[in-house]
Amino acid sequence: MKLQRPEEECGIFGIFNHPEASNLTYLGLYALQHRGQESCGIVSSDGSSLHAHKSMGLVADVFGNQEIFKSLPGKSAIGHVRYSTTGSSVIKNVQPIMVDYSRGSIAVAHNGNIVNAQIIKDELEAYGSIFQTTMDTEIIVHLLATSKANSLLDRISDSLNRIKGAYCLLFLTETRMVAVRDPNGFRPLCLGKLGSSYVVASESCALDLIDAEFIREIEPGEAIIITNEGMTSYFPLQKANPTPCIFEFVYFARPDSYIFGKNVYQVRKEMGRQLAREHQVDADIVIPIPDSGVPSALGYAEESGIPFELGLIRNHYVGRTFIEPQQAIRHFGVKIKLNPVREVLKDKRVVVIDDSIVRGTTSRKIVKMIRNAGAKEVHVRISSPPTSYPCYYGIDTPNRKELISSSHTIDEIRKYITADTLGYLSEDGLISSVGTENTSYCRACFTGSYPVKFPKLGIAPQLDLFEKELPEYE
Amino acid sequence: MKLQRPEEECGIFGIFNHPEASNLTYLGLYALQHRGQESCGIVSSDGSSLHAHKSMGLVADVFGNQEIFKSLPGKSAIGHVRYSTTGSSVIKNVQPIMVDYSRGSIAVAHNGNIVNAQIIKDELEAYGSIFQTTMDTEIIVHLLATSKANSLLDRISDSLNRIKGAYCLLFLTETRMVAVRDPNGFRPLCLGKLGSSYVVASESCALDLIDAEFIREIEPGEAIIITNEGMTSYFPLQKANPTPCIFEFVYFARPDSYIFGKNVYQVRKEMGRQLAREHQVDADIVIPIPDSGVPSALGYAEESGIPFELGLIRNHYVGRTFIEPQQAIRHFGVKIKLNPVREVLKDKRVVVIDDSIVRGTTSRKIVKMIRNAGAKEVHVRISSPPTSYPCYYGIDTPNRKELISSSHTIDEIRKYITADTLGYLSEDGLISSVGTENTSYCRACFTGSYPVKFPKLGIAPQLDLFEKELPEYE
Amino acid sequence: MKLQRPEEECGIFGIFNHPEASNLTYLGLYALQHRGQESCGIVSSDGSSLHAHKSMGLVADVFGNQEIFKSLPGKSAIGHVRYSTTGSSVIKNVQPIMVDYSRGSIAVAHNGNIVNAQIIKDELEAYGSIFQTTMDTEIIVHLLATSKANSLLDRISDSLNRIKGAYCLLFLTETRMVAVRDPNGFRPLCLGKLGSSYVVASESCALDLIDAEFIREIEPGEAIIITNEGMTSYFPLQKANPTPCIFEFVYFARPDSYIFGKNVYQVRKEMGRQLAREHQVDADIVIPIPDSGVPSALGYAEESGIPFELGLIRNHYVGRTFIEPQQAIRHFGVKIKLNPVREVLKDKRVVVIDDSIVRGTTSRKIVKMIRNAGAKEVHVRISSPPTSYPCYYGIDTPNRKELISSSHTIDEIRKYITADTLGYLSEDGLISSVGTENTSYCRACFTGSYPVKFPKLGIAPQLDLFEKELPEYE
Amino acid sequence: MKLQRPEEECGIFGIFNHPEASNLTYLGLYALQHRGQESCGIVSSDGSSLHAHKSMGLVADVFGNQEIFKSLPGKSAIGHVRYSTTGSSVIKNVQPIMVDYSRGSIAVAHNGNIVNAQIIKDELEAYGSIFQTTMDTEIIVHLLATSKANSLLDRISDSLNRIKGAYCLLFLTETRMVAVRDPNGFRPLCLGKLGSSYVVASESCALDLIDAEFIREIEPGEAIIITNEGMTSYFPLQKANPTPCIFEFVYFARPDSYIFGKNVYQVRKEMGRQLAREHQVDADIVIPIPDSGVPSALGYAEESGIPFELGLIRNHYVGRTFIEPQQAIRHFGVKIKLNPVREVLKDKRVVVIDDSIVRGTTSRKIVKMIRNAGAKEVHVRISSPPTSYPCYYGIDTPNRKELISSSHTIDEIRKYITADTLGYLSEDGLISSVGTENTSYCRACFTGSYPVKFPKLGIAPQLDLFEKELPEYE
Repeated sequence: MKLQRPEEECGIFGIFNHPEASNLTYLGLYALQHRGQESCGIVSSDGSSLHAHKSMGLVADVFGNQEIFKSLPGKSAIGHVRYSTTGSSVIKNVQPIMVDYSRGSIAVAHNGNIVNAQIIKDELEAYGSIFQTTMDTEIIVHLLATSKANSLLDRISDSLNRIKGAYCLLFLTETRMVAVRDPNGFRPLCLGKLGSSYVVASESCALDLIDAEFIREIEPGEAIIITNEGMTSYFPLQKANPTPCIFEFVYFARPDSYIFGKNVYQVRKEMGRQLAREHQVDADIVIPIPDSGVPSALGYAEESGIPFELGLIRNHYVGRTFIEPQQAIRHFGVKIKLNPVREVLKDKRVVVIDDSIVRGTTSRKIVKMIRNAGAKEVHVRISSPPTSYPCYYGIDTPNRKELISSSHTIDEIRKYITADTLGYLSEDGLISSVGTENTSYCRACFTGSYPVKFPKLGIAPQLDLFEKELPEYE
Repeated sequence: MKLQRPEEECGIFGIFNHPEASNLTYLGLYALQHRGQESCGIVSSDGSSLHAHKSMGLVADVFGNQEIFKSLPGKSAIGHVRYSTTGSSVIKNVQPIMVDYSRGSIAVAHNGNIVNAQIIKDELEAYGSIFQTTMDTEIIVHLLATSKANSLLDRISDSLNRIKGAYCLLFLTETRMVAVRDPNGFRPLCLGKLGSSYVVASESCALDLIDAEFIREIEPGEAIIITNEGMTSYFPLQKANPTPCIFEFVYFARPDSYIFGKNVYQVRKEMGRQLAREHQVDADIVIPIPDSGVPSALGYAEESGIPFELGLIRNHYVGRTFIEPQQAIRHFGVKIKLNPVREVLKDKRVVVIDDSIVRGTTSRKIVKMIRNAGAKEVHVRISSPPTSYPCYYGIDTPNRKELISSSHTIDEIRKYITADTLGYLSEDGLISSVGTENTSYCRACFTGSYPVKFPKLGIAPQLDLFEKELPEYE
Repeated sequence: MKLQRPEEECGIFGIFNHPEASNLTYLGLYALQHRGQESCGIVSSDGSSLHAHKSMGLVADVFGNQEIFKSLPGKSAIGHVRYSTTGSSVIKNVQPIMVDYSRGSIAVAHNGNIVNAQIIKDELEAYGSIFQTTMDTEIIVHLLATSKANSLLDRISDSLNRIKGAYCLLFLTETRMVAVRDPNGFRPLCLGKLGSSYVVASESCALDLIDAEFIREIEPGEAIIITNEGMTSYFPLQKANPTPCIFEFVYFARPDSYIFGKNVYQVRKEMGRQLAREHQVDADIVIPIPDSGVPSALGYAEESGIPFELGLIRNHYVGRTFIEPQQAIRHFGVKIKLNPVREVLKDKRVVVIDDSIVRGTTSRKIVKMIRNAGAKEVHVRISSPPTSYPCYYGIDTPNRKELISSSHTIDEIRKYITADTLGYLSEDGLISSVGTENTSYCRACFTGSYPVKFPKLGIAPQLDLFEKELPEYE
Repeated sequence: MKLQRPEEECGIFGIFNHPEASNLTYLGLYALQHRGQESCGIVSSDGSSLHAHKSMGLVADVFGNQEIFKSLPGKSAIGHVRYSTTGSSVIKNVQPIMVDYSRGSIAVAHNGNIVNAQIIKDELEAYGSIFQTTMDTEIIVHLLATSKANSLLDRISDSLNRIKGAYCLLFLTETRMVAVRDPNGFRPLCLGKLGSSYVVASESCALDLIDAEFIREIEPGEAIIITNEGMTSYFPLQKANPTPCIFEFVYFARPDSYIFGKNVYQVRKEMGRQLAREHQVDADIVIPIPDSGVPSALGYAEESGIPFELGLIRNHYVGRTFIEPQQAIRHFGVKIKLNPVREVLKDKRVVVIDDSIVRGTTSRKIVKMIRNAGAKEVHVRISSPPTSYPCYYGIDTPNRKELISSSHTIDEIRKYITADTLGYLSEDGLISSVGTENTSYCRACFTGSYPVKFPKLGIAPQLDLFEKELPEYE
């Protein structure tokens, strides 16, 4: 069985040496729920053995029972939330992975994607390894187990120096917690402290919820080992130029988080301001696609002087499945989430701010919905450049052929989504919004220039870029 | 067993003569989910008998299975969502109620509260009626069943002329749907059309979701009977001066709904503007308590010229239960829902806009959270007058003794919530925001002047106003 | 909506003034599980109010959680198990029913069937009663509620003197428990004592499980009122000649129970002995259809001298649903429960003992299965007379047209089930097995002579005797 | 983490090349449910990949949904039922195990226990293997994966020649099914045919249910490979003297199964007859502990001439958990399953037949229960010799110290269980009942003479024989 394409997103959290380790990990995962809503799990250590609870479902549901925490004893714990769009949405693929190997037990939680996973898997299997999941994370544990090095740090270096790609990792053994961020630093990972206990989390919002103090971000290529004696930092991995993912700012991270040296909300507002500078338009109101578009819409409104309004109301009770009626309801898929405020939109020239356009179908439905609500003009403004290339470093994006901007000009897209005008933030504008002090963000989704190369076998994922058909125009 | 105090909120929806009646009712309820998140139910009619599915839980969960709709056949259906804070959160109290009586079967969905329920219940029991639920709704069906009148309309008039209070009602028989709004018109109820099918809903947002056309609001005291022959309007109830609930505008209704002749979002923005006129303050930013405080905060910002920011981020993944850690996490209850954006608040003089203060404990936690995030000053502005009296007409409010403004001056409240300044919208300001053309809104929660009197026995609910202790100050 | 035909079976249990009332009621119901496997419920009284927990499912599942008993406080409780073959298998029909009426709260658990239910229901509705279930039990509560009598006993007499049929009833109010058995005494009901607490149960096996002492059976027409002051016996109902249901001995009751003055196991063995006397045959082994046929097969073997063997093994893990394969598996429905022991049956002349033949389809499958296992001859012996008439007094039997013996001669049945010979126990033989001291058992299912007449409207149930088609011969 | 002690029992089933493979596997598992009630799973092959569904729970519950079979496509499938008394009752340990390795995918279902598992695990880990379960089954897959042999058969030989112990194995790859029985043939395994499809099952009763024809037992040391081309038999394992488990006859297998060349029911009857010859007693009735004691009780009755009666009735509705009342109910644990028939036992001298005595506590409760029901004398007869040694080959038995006969004389046991007399079947008697043609059955549980030796490390399990305390006498 081939490893899955990396159509998944994740969040990780760990805490060491705290009497309520599992409970706090649960809260940490809850704060990171936006990074993965499909499954979650926690592994705790009681000092001599590891304990796990994992399941499909939201954090508040999977851990919504005091009894579960009795089965997760101990003073250290790591946790994971995960979203996957592929068939691999099955219980065996829920993280953290927990295994026995020659040195004892180890659990690992992984956020990211390894681009040479298949090549290493084939090699490991040739030497007799068996694989019980379809996650690239399992490869890491096999590499650890087959490493001949003596210290845990050396085994980790050995293993990670063989893998390429994007990863933030949390390891938990009976007596240690290890946090690693890949040399490119694609995904965010930060270090905090709650009393004397160290905490590691994908985003700082998880520290906030448990009142932990933010210490610093873990650096690209850094490994941190935490034991009862304290914390030690290492740089065991081959150096690389850091290329943090700019899309974390555009869409993925929570606005109240501090990542890559910035607050997300403020970066997004600045993107909106820059967007206004680049794509001014004569209009009556600026409205966001809630919730993600709000900060950039506020920035656009501020810079342009056009009043900000909530022209679309979001319904937050959306369940897992939705029984669609047979009859045609206009823009149905969008309506389940968004409803226009007719009185706000009627006879108005409306600027709509969104973070990105993927397939174009949703944007098209939203523009029509706004127009049906009475808007005279609809001007779409996107707070990032056209997304023309899939991500191979841990963000769920469709294949290239499904990305409308990979094969259409901006004007074609405008026509398709039936907007009066359409403006994307320029690449330079995006970078200046994020801050020019760090110009090496990964922007592969806009440029196709992937900072970590794929192995020969890695051509495969490129090929399937074109295997799926473009969605039919309605 | 005494009937419960009216600690509940509800939404109702019905559609007549549509091939996908149950499915559309499910969508309608989904759009009304904010009016009741605890239980829901649908009763359909296939022309000769009624069918029910009811359960505790959210609409998307209870009806998240295509099979359920097979058990709800027919071209007409009514549905109900409900929230209750009392022990009556049990399956037997889930609506719609469906019964057999001398004329066949009838189902009823009820939004509101009957203030002379106990007196009528005692009377009905004296004549031999038995009660299987603790809902006042059951009384209505008993009255219908014991009425000697011949036509359904007359039986409904007979029955409803005996009850006092707030109610919007939807009845479904094998062949008819009846919608009634009480003479005071406390709760909203509107009429729409989907193709040739009539639709009735608590709020217009439910019409929007299914693409139904908004026709008009059902008037106070009006009863509408819908059959295969069409719709007929009656005014069978004793006249009264309409007193729609002003709190629907303040807090309860969805901003995209049109109720009592107005769009909720626009009314709320105007409240914010008026609040700014009444309680200006020298400050750096205006932030809302999301989501309900957003429109008035936008109004406040617009009028005052102080920039609007999202200083608090809401987590929308909150589950039913939440396992709290033992250790003290500051402002925990609030943190589960809200997290401050430190970089936005730091060193700022902050105006926080909320719709109301109930017990004061949450406001206190929020103020402290904002201050902990670095705010220099915190100015709380409330887009309604002090809520000093409980509601007996269908909005869940605590007993009087728990309402902080019933026993504390505004300055005492300010001190308790630790705000630098505190300003409530004046009653006149609220009325002018809603529109002076209709000055007779029910404002009992602010004034204690209840437009529909309680029967002698009705003193009882007043007495329990003081039975509970004020929450201890932290 | 018409009341359902009485296609249901039930068991009831109650205990008064015991600190573990709910828990013991749960155990009592568990011992009565064979009387109804579809739903169950318990209502407890804490002296001032009643509490209920009811659900679809087996007793051990519905109450398999310590928490549930916290919601059933108090020293008295009644419970109910129920089986229904009709569409009424829904939560609203789960007993005990619990209602409020003019005198307070009352719960009722009912085993039996009221034959004039529809006529009384129509009458009650004419006076304004509403019905929320499709169970005849609800009628009893309405009659209680509409009675003008002052004492509970008088209200019960009033009410029960109006109903006809078979019933054992347990009422629970805040402070009293009442047990009533109909004047014909169709169903069993016994009284026991656990310490100083009175216990009432459908069968004595429920007393055994909780170590309660068997006191005596409750007599036909007797009502027993139990309060904190003790127990009082009354005979408030119109006298009748007792006609206990002989089918309880044949099939329904548990063999370890003592009912109608006899132990069931011993009566069944005697039926087997009598069957051997009436229908001797030259054969090698006698085998039962387990589990119900075992005692009569033992009796048959004993009397005939033919060795008893377990030729069919029962699988006790049968679940609620069973996914049948598409391909033809011979005698599939039967195989899920029974498997032949080939080595026991091969080349043998086999006597198979069963308690009754209903449609004949199962017997046919069993005979073929035995023959396929190598039996040379198959002689079917039935420990009761042909069942040609449906039961209207609380045992689930199909309509008359489905009862094979209502329209076929014994030889036709023999041919249909493909047996070499077929012998039914004679009516006289059955009576002599049960004991001649009581010759007035209800044997309507064999004779069509119903001891309690149906009202005019009661013709209805007769009419539907022929509405269903005979099952097609395979 | 150490591998678990072998406290588990299992059943396996497989079918190759049948259009309804998964559905038939489900039926097969259902017939083998008595071999493991805790969890179950099925893996199917569609020719190019494997599909799994596994869960805690009974077969009829886990697979009680037609939809599940859609997720198990293909013409071949293997399944597993499992019971475990240790903490390893967790989802990750549910079989079949399914993995990827260098040759593709493979699934394995295992009944038995590997005695040198820990030693091999340590070795495998030293070479870099990781373990995700605590089941010895996982070792087998690792050995397969690390084997350098080219053919599947050679890899299997390689692997199995390294393990010692008891095992029946079913392997499923994309295109092949392999069945293996260990050289000692501890556990039963048989081969059948359904049309042209081969079927393999732990017991023949599973073939019966699906109408498959019994072909023969798979021989000790035999491996059978089934492909689309047909079946081939091999003997790739080191020869050993077969020592099938005699306890399968005594207790574990179903009476309608044919194993080790015999029908279980007939062997059990003969044990009863032999028991009568060895331990005759003057008594009035012979009663079995149902269900397992019935055949030997029939044999005892036949040989002794004492009448057989059902003196104890079994309740078959026992659920997973049972909420015990606080108050003392005599013999509670036993009462939940068994109730005496007082009228059968009263004033009788009773011979009670059981298959074995483990801790003695249950026997003690049963004897007392029978005496409380009025028996004058209670003579306990056990249809096997004293069980003094734990099983290490796949039957769940407690540690030695808990086995009452490991430390007590027969007379001490008799006193403890309060019987008038106690007689065990002699070892010779047991062997003669089973048939003298095969004298080499494993009888280690009676003799302590283990036919397959433990490795040095295997001392460990011996040590823990005494780590638990004897149950306190009541």
